[in-house]
Amino acid sequence: MPQVQAVLLDISGVLCDGDQPIPGAVQAVRQLQDRGYPLRLITNTSRQGLTSIQRQLKAMGFEIQPEQLFTAPRAVRRYLQDHGLRPFCLIHPGLEEEFAQWLDLADPDAVVVGDAEMRFDYEHLNRAFQLLIGGAPLICMGDNRYFRAHGALHLDAGPFVRALEYAAGTTALVLGKPSADFFASALDDMGVRADQTLMIGDDVVADIIGAQAAGLHACLVRTCKYRQGDESQAPKAWVAADLAEAVARYC
Amino acid sequence: MPQVQAVLLDISGVLCDGDQPIPGAVQAVRQLQDRGYPLRLITNTSRQGLTSIQRQLKAMGFEIQPEQLFTAPRAVRRYLQDHGLRPFCLIHPGLEEEFAQWLDLADPDAVVVGDAEMRFDYEHLNRAFQLLIGGAPLICMGDNRYFRAHGALHLDAGPFVRALEYAAGTTALVLGKPSADFFASALDDMGVRADQTLMIGDDVVADIIGAQAAGLHACLVRTCKYRQGDESQAPKAWVAADLAEAVARYC
Repeated sequence: MPQVQAVLLDISGVLCDGDQPIPGAVQAVRQLQDRGYPLRLITNTSRQGLTSIQRQLKAMGFEIQPEQLFTAPRAVRRYLQDHGLRPFCLIHPGLEEEFAQWLDLADPDAVVVGDAEMRFDYEHLNRAFQLLIGGAPLICMGDNRYFRAHGALHLDAGPFVRALEYAAGTTALVLGKPSADFFASALDDMGVRADQTLMIGDDVVADIIGAQAAGLHACLVRTCKYRQGDESQAPKAWVAADLAEAVARYC
Repeated sequence: MPQVQAVLLDISGVLCDGDQPIPGAVQAVRQLQDRGYPLRLITNTSRQGLTSIQRQLKAMGFEIQPEQLFTAPRAVRRYLQDHGLRPFCLIHPGLEEEFAQWLDLADPDAVVVGDAEMRFDYEHLNRAFQLLIGGAPLICMGDNRYFRAHGALHLDAGPFVRALEYAAGTTALVLGKPSADFFASALDDMGVRADQTLMIGDDVVADIIGAQAAGLHACLVRTCKYRQGDESQAPKAWVAADLAEAVARYC
């Protein structure tokens, strides 16, 4: 078994279930931190800033620094800064603080799409389309089809990404799981290589197959989103009952 | 050369250029009518009712009966009636009169998408999505990517169709050119077979390749949207300088 030198952890379903920590998870994260592993909590969440997520985790007992949180919005910010882009932002109000420097720009040269919900209207989408056909790149915080809330399914950002891709004849850069570009961005942020890094998650497609496609090792935990037989979709994945067992066994 | 027994005509670019009739087109249409050809004017226009289109054509000298107009909205109405469906309508205000019987339905079991423009907002699209995942079919008036107006390109219905297809994991029934289902519906409306029918149009993809894929004969006219070399995309198409020449030569 190869030596693991850095770790990526999914949050929802691995660290916690709703607002409850999963038994043993707080201790397991502390063990990884104490042993000095480069560590990132990696999530597609595109409705909250880093400090808001940090606060929620702290309330459950997890002591996480903001720089250890690698969210889809953070990956997008990183990309914009690295490429000197001025984005037109179709994003959730919860991200306004982090994206404040880029809001109300007079002359955008990129389009950023997150879970904008009610801001997904004709006027905003048409403006994004016109920028795209003018050559602006399309960068998005994941392309999930829908999410569940209040007992019903609701449109996530993915359908609007597909709409803009089709309209402008372009392909989005997806910075969210399971995109390999997103995992690569997290590795780059830690300064480690894919084959040195272990991704631990409960979602066989987004976490496990996505990480493996990006060259990482991956461990499927049997908590929350896990369904019996999921292993068969990723035969080379390691498996563990939960985060505590995964850390004890593989790190 | 096979005997033509029925004719389909594109409107914009074949009969007229903007609000001006193309030279010889009024007489050519009258000839077809006088000779008793089953005839339909076939168009994707999804912002106007039949009587409004009839009025515009009359102002240019074309005497067309509403039943000779086969628009994408008419094909959709036909489909809804044939299948006893109650649609949730995302359509242009210009179609409200024709779709009045289906507006504000309490219990829809189908989703209809046209060029709804400002009505393409999160709330309406989310409602459509929820009906689709409940099993409602998705029926749309064409899937064009964009249209040109006021010197700029704007999102047409197609991107929103792709968004809903992706979100719900479904495939739309497209009743607009170049869909074979649309041409088949027009033929059915006339009571003629594809191999007896000639489609005349200036758009090599929507009119010519679309009609040929549905089994019709097709004649490309070199007016308006036509660009030199378009013939090479459809080597089996007949060609003519304009509608008058097409009618004189092939009908």
